[in-house]
Amino acid sequence: MSEFAITFKPIGVIRSEHVSAQQTPIQPNYAKGCKGRAVIFLEFGEGLRDLDGFSHIYLIYQLHQAEPPKLIVKPFLQDVERGVFSTRSPCRPNAIGLSVLELVRREGNVLHLDGVDILDGTPLLDIKPYSAKFDRIDTFRNGWQDEVDEETARQRGLRGYRGGSNP
Amino acid sequence: MSEFAITFKPIGVIRSEHVSAQQTPIQPNYAKGCKGRAVIFLEFGEGLRDLDGFSHIYLIYQLHQAEPPKLIVKPFLQDVERGVFSTRSPCRPNAIGLSVLELVRREGNVLHLDGVDILDGTPLLDIKPYSAKFDRIDTFRNGWQDEVDEETARQRGLRGYRGGSNP
Repeated sequence: MSEFAITFKPIGVIRSEHVSAQQTPIQPNYAKGCKGRAVIFLEFGEGLRDLDGFSHIYLIYQLHQAEPPKLIVKPFLQDVERGVFSTRSPCRPNAIGLSVLELVRREGNVLHLDGVDILDGTPLLDIKPYSAKFDRIDTFRNGWQDEVDEETARQRGLRGYRGGSNP
Repeated sequence: MSEFAITFKPIGVIRSEHVSAQQTPIQPNYAKGCKGRAVIFLEFGEGLRDLDGFSHIYLIYQLHQAEPPKLIVKPFLQDVERGVFSTRSPCRPNAIGLSVLELVRREGNVLHLDGVDILDGTPLLDIKPYSAKFDRIDTFRNGWQDEVDEETARQRGLRGYRGGSNP
């Protein structure tokens, strides 16, 4: 069933101050103040029209420096083994990353972003508007993450990052 | 810059009651009551551990029946031409879909879902937990979507779907 391959091509590249996977914050909310850019290839530029009306956008990208996939991982936030699909670990069967970032402004083919938790040079696959209507969900259970207190999450989430607004 | 290809393989398949792209609701919140399943291939089953602690999950999938990409589209919700990246239109350069669904329960390798806005037979690429900590964002601008009133959105969002809890 799983033999066929699905092929995508990058629409651009993500530029950030994170050059080491080990020191890249794990999620945008632990990367506040981390500026970065999505540089969209010229051929796709027209597709960016109207995007700057949205304060937040999803980026979908290839986790191009992820280690080989594992089905059981220790998430960054907790020293307990978990099924990889219950985590945001990069070592997943398809190395696809997803971040919700603040779109600060658009300058032609360049999107200026805040909260960038993405490694410099990352191939970008897609951009979608984050919509309060569709994407802001009142969850009632957050699994093992409900066990992690916010201060622990913040400290672990930074992963050595000491710049931005998180001194 | 954009010549290299990135290849993924499905981790499973999505089963739903939607057999026609034209009648598939456009987003989970217009598909309440639409039950469906994500059937994960056995080789990836172990990665589902701990997932059922989360009430909501992201599915990332291939929009396998999308029409050829366009950079300017009319979104489902509005008769105005918009840049494709400011919409959730399936006709995008990389036909990648993203939905936040309610995880009703897990039964072995099968995830039972509600709010399924996805075509039957869709190849599944990744599953991530939806986390209130990471993903529930207070947006301050929702672009052109702020122009669409909720009743219009609901009617257009259903796209001919008349089952579920939306008579």
